[in-house]
Amino acid sequence: MNLILLFKNDFFKENTRVRLDDRRFIHIRDILRARTGDALCVGLVGGKTGTGRITSFTTRHVEMDVDLRHDPPDPLPVTLIVALPRPNVLKRILQTVSSMGVKRIFIVNSSRIEKSFWLSPVLREEKIKEQLIAGIEQAKDTILPEVALRPLFKPFVEDELPHLMDGGLALIAHPESLQECPRETGRPVILAVGPEGGFIPYEVEKLTSLGFMAVRLGNRILRVETAIPALLAKLF
Amino acid sequence: MNLILLFKNDFFKENTRVRLDDRRFIHIRDILRARTGDALCVGLVGGKTGTGRITSFTTRHVEMDVDLRHDPPDPLPVTLIVALPRPNVLKRILQTVSSMGVKRIFIVNSSRIEKSFWLSPVLREEKIKEQLIAGIEQAKDTILPEVALRPLFKPFVEDELPHLMDGGLALIAHPESLQECPRETGRPVILAVGPEGGFIPYEVEKLTSLGFMAVRLGNRILRVETAIPALLAKLF
Repeated sequence: MNLILLFKNDFFKENTRVRLDDRRFIHIRDILRARTGDALCVGLVGGKTGTGRITSFTTRHVEMDVDLRHDPPDPLPVTLIVALPRPNVLKRILQTVSSMGVKRIFIVNSSRIEKSFWLSPVLREEKIKEQLIAGIEQAKDTILPEVALRPLFKPFVEDELPHLMDGGLALIAHPESLQECPRETGRPVILAVGPEGGFIPYEVEKLTSLGFMAVRLGNRILRVETAIPALLAKLF
Repeated sequence: MNLILLFKNDFFKENTRVRLDDRRFIHIRDILRARTGDALCVGLVGGKTGTGRITSFTTRHVEMDVDLRHDPPDPLPVTLIVALPRPNVLKRILQTVSSMGVKRIFIVNSSRIEKSFWLSPVLREEKIKEQLIAGIEQAKDTILPEVALRPLFKPFVEDELPHLMDGGLALIAHPESLQECPRETGRPVILAVGPEGGFIPYEVEKLTSLGFMAVRLGNRILRVETAIPALLAKLF
């Protein structure tokens, strides 16, 4: 947690002072070992970042005077479509892409996904949000990504995906492709990443018929959780 | 496991047939659900890759006739120096960098590391090897990385590091730097990655005095396990 993320309802007293009594309080007390007078990096969710100076510390909560004046770091101009990975991997991926500045994520079905993954509690809205918050707190960002679940591949690709493409570069990460992933594209990208084992040919065809281009990352097959940060680093 | 890694002592009968009865046997039986006659991707540790055709399958082992004729994928021309992360993160990082083709890894001390991490069983030679094997099996590689533990920062940097530099590009991943990480360097790199919170100024100075240049990955602070694949993807 490199930034303490604040929410509207943390504020009292003319919107300049916050009181925290949850995991953030515990983090400030036990990990940062901060004291009254210390200034911490804070940010208002969806808003600006700045400093919070500790005005009081009790056994139950901490209060800070907050001064917010900096913009959060720029988002990545990317829409990420990722085939639902196994639940513990999904948690890490959400946190990773949130920290890297991805703001629009679609978690989709694919033929090679175990159907039971869709029943995981990790997919609950509040569980997803936990990971997204951890990611933006890591990166000193304040803008929460939007995550949408799409358990049906075909209607997502046919009805929704064409409207998401916006003329950006559309890529499928596909180790079998001979085309290398482009570097430093300088334009918006919509990036589809399959499950372990890849999208099946039918799924690749559906995507390429919309204008997606299959690209690889060298001649190594990487795990999804390795491939995603590597792809994002290459593209931007 | 996209490749079944074979060892010299798996072979019998004129070095063309192997018998497997360990985790690889279980993987072939339960995950790949292979049968007699199927051809699997195999590789000899330190050697070539090819196919293994299943000649017999019992309840206790599988036998394959092996034909090895392809070179493994090229390694990355990088030496990675990484401050010891917490044990569960180290496991993932070893697997990740092994899959990406890193072949020389030094795990070093840093002032911000919890000393207890050095006592973790994850650092045992056979535990490290497990992760490295998982990484090269993922990437269809056969060359195991070499991992060295250096629990003393100063003697490592003063006595050993100068001999590792070989005239390559020497970089420290350092979020406070204003210099962006270079892209597609086209030359060998020695890359030092600090702990969460970064190397302390003394450590950065020790490294820069040898010719290391501090670079950042944009203006976001990333977790070590995210930063490493992102850095490697940018550099190569």
